[in-house]
Amino acid sequence: MAKAPQTAITPTRAEDYPEWYQQVVRAADLAEQSPVRGCMVIKPWGYAIWEAMQQALDRMFKETGHVNAYFPLFIPLSYLEKEAEHVEGFAKECAIVTHHRLEAGPDGGLVPTGKLEEPLVVRPTSETIIGAMYAKWIKSYRDLPILINQWANVVRWELRTRLFLRTTEFLWQEGHTAHATAEEAIQETRKMLGVYATFAKDYMAMPVIRGEKTAGERFPGAVNTYSIEAMMQDRKALQAGTSHFLGQNFSKAQEIKYLSNEGREEFAWTTSWGVSTRLVGALIMTHSDDDGLVLPPKLAPQHVVILPIFRNDEEGGPVLEYCHKLRGELATQTYDNAPVRVLVDTRDIPRADKKWQHVKRGVPVIVEVGPRDIQGDTLMPKRRDESSAEKKPAVSRAEFVSSIGTSLAAMQANLYNRALAYRQEYTRTFTDLAEFESYFTAKNADKPEIHGGFAIAHIAEGPESAAVFAKHKLTVRCIPLDDEPGFEEQVEGKCLFSGKPTKVRAVISKAY
Amino acid sequence: MAKAPQTAITPTRAEDYPEWYQQVVRAADLAEQSPVRGCMVIKPWGYAIWEAMQQALDRMFKETGHVNAYFPLFIPLSYLEKEAEHVEGFAKECAIVTHHRLEAGPDGGLVPTGKLEEPLVVRPTSETIIGAMYAKWIKSYRDLPILINQWANVVRWELRTRLFLRTTEFLWQEGHTAHATAEEAIQETRKMLGVYATFAKDYMAMPVIRGEKTAGERFPGAVNTYSIEAMMQDRKALQAGTSHFLGQNFSKAQEIKYLSNEGREEFAWTTSWGVSTRLVGALIMTHSDDDGLVLPPKLAPQHVVILPIFRNDEEGGPVLEYCHKLRGELATQTYDNAPVRVLVDTRDIPRADKKWQHVKRGVPVIVEVGPRDIQGDTLMPKRRDESSAEKKPAVSRAEFVSSIGTSLAAMQANLYNRALAYRQEYTRTFTDLAEFESYFTAKNADKPEIHGGFAIAHIAEGPESAAVFAKHKLTVRCIPLDDEPGFEEQVEGKCLFSGKPTKVRAVISKAY
Repeated sequence: MAKAPQTAITPTRAEDYPEWYQQVVRAADLAEQSPVRGCMVIKPWGYAIWEAMQQALDRMFKETGHVNAYFPLFIPLSYLEKEAEHVEGFAKECAIVTHHRLEAGPDGGLVPTGKLEEPLVVRPTSETIIGAMYAKWIKSYRDLPILINQWANVVRWELRTRLFLRTTEFLWQEGHTAHATAEEAIQETRKMLGVYATFAKDYMAMPVIRGEKTAGERFPGAVNTYSIEAMMQDRKALQAGTSHFLGQNFSKAQEIKYLSNEGREEFAWTTSWGVSTRLVGALIMTHSDDDGLVLPPKLAPQHVVILPIFRNDEEGGPVLEYCHKLRGELATQTYDNAPVRVLVDTRDIPRADKKWQHVKRGVPVIVEVGPRDIQGDTLMPKRRDESSAEKKPAVSRAEFVSSIGTSLAAMQANLYNRALAYRQEYTRTFTDLAEFESYFTAKNADKPEIHGGFAIAHIAEGPESAAVFAKHKLTVRCIPLDDEPGFEEQVEGKCLFSGKPTKVRAVISKAY
Repeated sequence: MAKAPQTAITPTRAEDYPEWYQQVVRAADLAEQSPVRGCMVIKPWGYAIWEAMQQALDRMFKETGHVNAYFPLFIPLSYLEKEAEHVEGFAKECAIVTHHRLEAGPDGGLVPTGKLEEPLVVRPTSETIIGAMYAKWIKSYRDLPILINQWANVVRWELRTRLFLRTTEFLWQEGHTAHATAEEAIQETRKMLGVYATFAKDYMAMPVIRGEKTAGERFPGAVNTYSIEAMMQDRKALQAGTSHFLGQNFSKAQEIKYLSNEGREEFAWTTSWGVSTRLVGALIMTHSDDDGLVLPPKLAPQHVVILPIFRNDEEGGPVLEYCHKLRGELATQTYDNAPVRVLVDTRDIPRADKKWQHVKRGVPVIVEVGPRDIQGDTLMPKRRDESSAEKKPAVSRAEFVSSIGTSLAAMQANLYNRALAYRQEYTRTFTDLAEFESYFTAKNADKPEIHGGFAIAHIAEGPESAAVFAKHKLTVRCIPLDDEPGFEEQVEGKCLFSGKPTKVRAVISKAY
């Protein structure tokens, strides 16, 4: 065998995973740092992926009875202070508006003036401002449930940021619901966790584990926090979405009361749930390879890119005509209930640059069309998830066109299956603490930077795990729900750390 | 004649137009003031209208070659200061972030800490932060044009606010483009003005005049500002969208340079253009009546609301079954290339309340279905733009279903024609200053609050008009483009105010 081919991304995943991630974001032209500390610019290709995510999620929210609305960007400080745990959780990372005017200062430059009587916090999340409105809107049990979602930007002042994964400003959706009973609110919390899991599986081709967070990992002010956890290719976990049962904590702090069917005044039960542009980071780290981004077809802004190849105008005429005709034919085909999205890239830049640009951007299918392809009316389409070493026979144009929907569906399924197999390969159940520790420390011969994975272990409450977790930078990612595959049956066991008997099994790993 | 019927909205338009507007917003459940000064909450029905607008506009932007992206909410003060006129235009209305943390203060409450080295301005518009990125991205003429749009929230600190029309925070889109030549940038500016005008006409059923702003009304930093101007039912103008040719003002301030085809370093030519949630205010004031909101079908979140009428469970069974079947049949029909949107409102609230709620919310077609309607299999659908006095014969269910698309299209056309006729009725050309002044002062016998309208007059540059304008609170709304109907031919005339000869004709009126 010849030596491994050079890759489009340097370094490779095995060489330096964090740097590989930054280089994929850059090579795929998804986003970049802005001059504003910690705030990113989401570039057109990255934003188109977010739009595709939004569109699918928005439809799923509406199908489950939710409507969209919009609440203010600013939260008066006194509102944030109403729920004690909540404000404590966010106080250290708030952007605060204190003035509303600029005027020339003593040295000529502009300085903030018009000091506000009460500072305004740029929303880090909207429980308190939305709760204040719900307190006004809800009078009787007839006004419940309220099922509202908001698409918005939020700000959390982060010191260490990474594009998409952790940024000072990010885009997200936040659902906020109010219910007459705890049962109904819990059901909503779990239902929306399920919507996130379905979206992750069906659109992102990303397998996730749905579970409950431990007390220390709860959303500030929540009674219970649930999350979906995905394994990235460096075997760390990424929390990809959360759904919170807030009990009556916020309704008591904000007086969200209703008159019940029996005429009693009751506090409402509330929930909140959200996913953010972090999902784009999750998508990158789940599927991409050493040649750049790999996009699941359902979220790809373009499904097929056609690259016309010709040396002169004489060749160019028929080639371009053929390409545009091919685009038209492909666009009559459907995938995911919509026309296949096709681009003919006619830009006047070097052939190899152009091709690699689309490879690095993760376009699912790339097809080059030159005079010889036209002559035979056959094509050599390249599917992004297939190895470039693997040579496939040419297919007739007619067959390429008629099978494009099937081909995209096959790629979508392949990406999911590959990611699931990877997670399964690096998920192990432990009953021995030494083996557990070795799992997170043993170096891997071929991939020295990547080791460990998800560990499943019985765990009981208590301080015994803390030292081990701190030593290896581990956290309990979640306690999987009892309808998660593999966790349906309660199994008696002993806590891996304290030896105490327990039925609780957790997913433990390093995490983003 | 009996006395005028009572209306759902008090006061009526004729009685108190500004208050009527507030009451329509309230009765249609579109938005309300939040506890944050000047910031509104856009409620689900209002937000659904904005979503419908976004969807149509977004498609039109993409069809004209634009892509979406996202830039930071915050602008470093030094960036805003780079373009002198620009910062002067916005300095008095900026929300400024000065701190990034909250800590317990001397009296126990939280106070802002972590002072920023450089204050951040919450974007009032994004020319400067986007320009900074363009300066990085653009190197050669091959990188041009850049055609990017952003959907975002912006903040302008307003002292007097009115829901949708003027709020401290509002939602909008802002297009920002960069070009190699002035001609191309001017063409883009005009093209996007055209897109806005087409959207206003085809979706909002709102006739607009496209024109150029006078120097005093230009966007801070622009060479030329164009706008679309619409007449509201109180005959005031509302500026519904603007498109700016920025020349090289911003590219010089921000060093947006490119290497030309001939190897010369040149400054790019830029444009920006935007519409906002203000359009919802324009929509309300163009079509609504004394019974509340009237929605053009293309932007209506629901096209048809079916109201089941029954006195007991025995009647209820067949009525509900009929209603759901009817909904299914209507949903197989299409309007504006999508299925007709139908809701069966089964809520257990009094019949009249329920019906009037939908009337006030502007649902295009409302149909009540009771036992007798089922028996005859005929219905009495009510189109929101038709007078309630006008009795129409019942139609068979089959006919109602098969004609729903046509009926919605007829309503859409009727709203446009009605608004156009209204504008034409209250648009007059003046060559006599006394008549002009009387037009804006004479009281209207039947509508004492409403007088004047649009005045067309020749106008030359100079100070002569200022006193008249100030006296009657008038502004030049725009100099209509030479392809606006009625303005195709240049007509020599004398300035209404100075008598100087001029070819320039302007639209003059009171305005929002």
